[in-house]
Amino acid sequence: MSKRSSNWVLATGDKIDLKKIDPKNTGEYKSKEDTEKETKELMKRFEKLQDKLFSSKKKSLLFIFQGMDCSGKDGVINKVFSISHPQGVQTHSFKTPTREEMDHDFLWRAHKLVSGVGYITAFNRSYYEDVLITRVHKMISDKKAQQRFKQIRHFEEMLEDNGVKVVKIFLHISKEFQLEKLIARIENPKKNWKFDESDLLERKSWDTYQAYYEDVFAHAATKDHPWHIVSADNRWYRDLAVLQIVVRTLEDLDLSYPDPNPKLQDHLPDMYAEREKLLKDKK
Amino acid sequence: MSKRSSNWVLATGDKIDLKKIDPKNTGEYKSKEDTEKETKELMKRFEKLQDKLFSSKKKSLLFIFQGMDCSGKDGVINKVFSISHPQGVQTHSFKTPTREEMDHDFLWRAHKLVSGVGYITAFNRSYYEDVLITRVHKMISDKKAQQRFKQIRHFEEMLEDNGVKVVKIFLHISKEFQLEKLIARIENPKKNWKFDESDLLERKSWDTYQAYYEDVFAHAATKDHPWHIVSADNRWYRDLAVLQIVVRTLEDLDLSYPDPNPKLQDHLPDMYAEREKLLKDKK
Repeated sequence: MSKRSSNWVLATGDKIDLKKIDPKNTGEYKSKEDTEKETKELMKRFEKLQDKLFSSKKKSLLFIFQGMDCSGKDGVINKVFSISHPQGVQTHSFKTPTREEMDHDFLWRAHKLVSGVGYITAFNRSYYEDVLITRVHKMISDKKAQQRFKQIRHFEEMLEDNGVKVVKIFLHISKEFQLEKLIARIENPKKNWKFDESDLLERKSWDTYQAYYEDVFAHAATKDHPWHIVSADNRWYRDLAVLQIVVRTLEDLDLSYPDPNPKLQDHLPDMYAEREKLLKDKK
Repeated sequence: MSKRSSNWVLATGDKIDLKKIDPKNTGEYKSKEDTEKETKELMKRFEKLQDKLFSSKKKSLLFIFQGMDCSGKDGVINKVFSISHPQGVQTHSFKTPTREEMDHDFLWRAHKLVSGVGYITAFNRSYYEDVLITRVHKMISDKKAQQRFKQIRHFEEMLEDNGVKVVKIFLHISKEFQLEKLIARIENPKKNWKFDESDLLERKSWDTYQAYYEDVFAHAATKDHPWHIVSADNRWYRDLAVLQIVVRTLEDLDLSYPDPNPKLQDHLPDMYAEREKLLKDKK
């Protein structure tokens, strides 16, 4: 797995210049075909690790996906988390807060959705919107944003202390890529329902968003809780990189199956006797 | 699909005698191999129909799975609902009610989890436990049970009136089958964590459970809201039958993609102009 570390940029609290990260980067991979064997193998490992996570019931995982409109948050969650144990995975898509949610602190609605031990949760957007879209639209001051960064750091630290591994992934796309996606949603009548007029409005603030994302990477990332910046103009590369992050994270948890319980054996004689009886009754 | 209707028993409110339904029945299928082609084809149709359900955002589906311990509720949900769009499916496993849940009416905790338009939800156990385990352990009177049946009928009718299709599936296993499963969970140390001592206790009330299930089929089923009784001693048959029910239900909803929105075209000239500009800037 020597290729892994080159497939995303780790933001650990230093200043990141998004302009210097190429959204079209595909690392050492040249095409989708290049990734197929590894993808298959990683999915197998993911499924095994998820089974361990689920049965050991000691830790849980929270994946946070952020990115501009059309960056493929939906797509990558569907691709990577469509495993054969859907009951072990929960996904949540964060929309404009409801009236009730607005009446609470900004972490309230997310906290309720954090997964319990054994489970994997994927957030499609998150409380990070409260230091992104809110800043772009000048709904909160810079001072308030700094306060929220502190609260986010403390919240994630608290989760980690309680066995929830928080993994943050930013899907990095280019302005051209987004435009092509939006055009396609209009040109193709079948995709019209996916088009949201507000996306065009948000697009006008592209540079401001990028700057506030850089602020997120500077103020809500450390060596222990980094942001993973994944180039996402190429879907196949984006999917592979995220899958690599997922598998690596699970491996680092050092999971093991729960210990056998030898005391259970005591039940067996009675059960064997019942088996005999049922067989006899049948004859 | 001429085989479909023979693959489960429909309970529509008449007296059902579970002893007369063979848990080992496999319909016209002789082996797993016999079902593979149809399963593949049904999964494809399921995925297409789910996409329509999700994008049309008009109706939602609620699948309720009930059955004795070891009947394979977990297994069939994992098998049938592991589709390539995990964000469109929500699963919930009902455990012993918490203190807070006990402080509310028995439908409260389930109502919160009913899926919104576009979504499919699968309940692993449900509010039906409140007319099953509660009766076996004499926590409620027969009169109370009858009252609850009425409340369940009204609740499900209300959901249907509001676009939630409720589909109830009972996985029917034999007493021998459960015993073998329980023995396997003890004999295989890796499966020990799945063994729950209380399962042995509940097993002692097998006949009482069966009688109360028959009561459910008599009092909480109508022609429009039947219970599907699926023979489940053979996993491969159980999985196929449930998949058939899922696909048939979705087909009966008569879903269609949302209409295109020709007005969106008005945005295109500006977007094409921006595309030109971005291309020029790059050169």
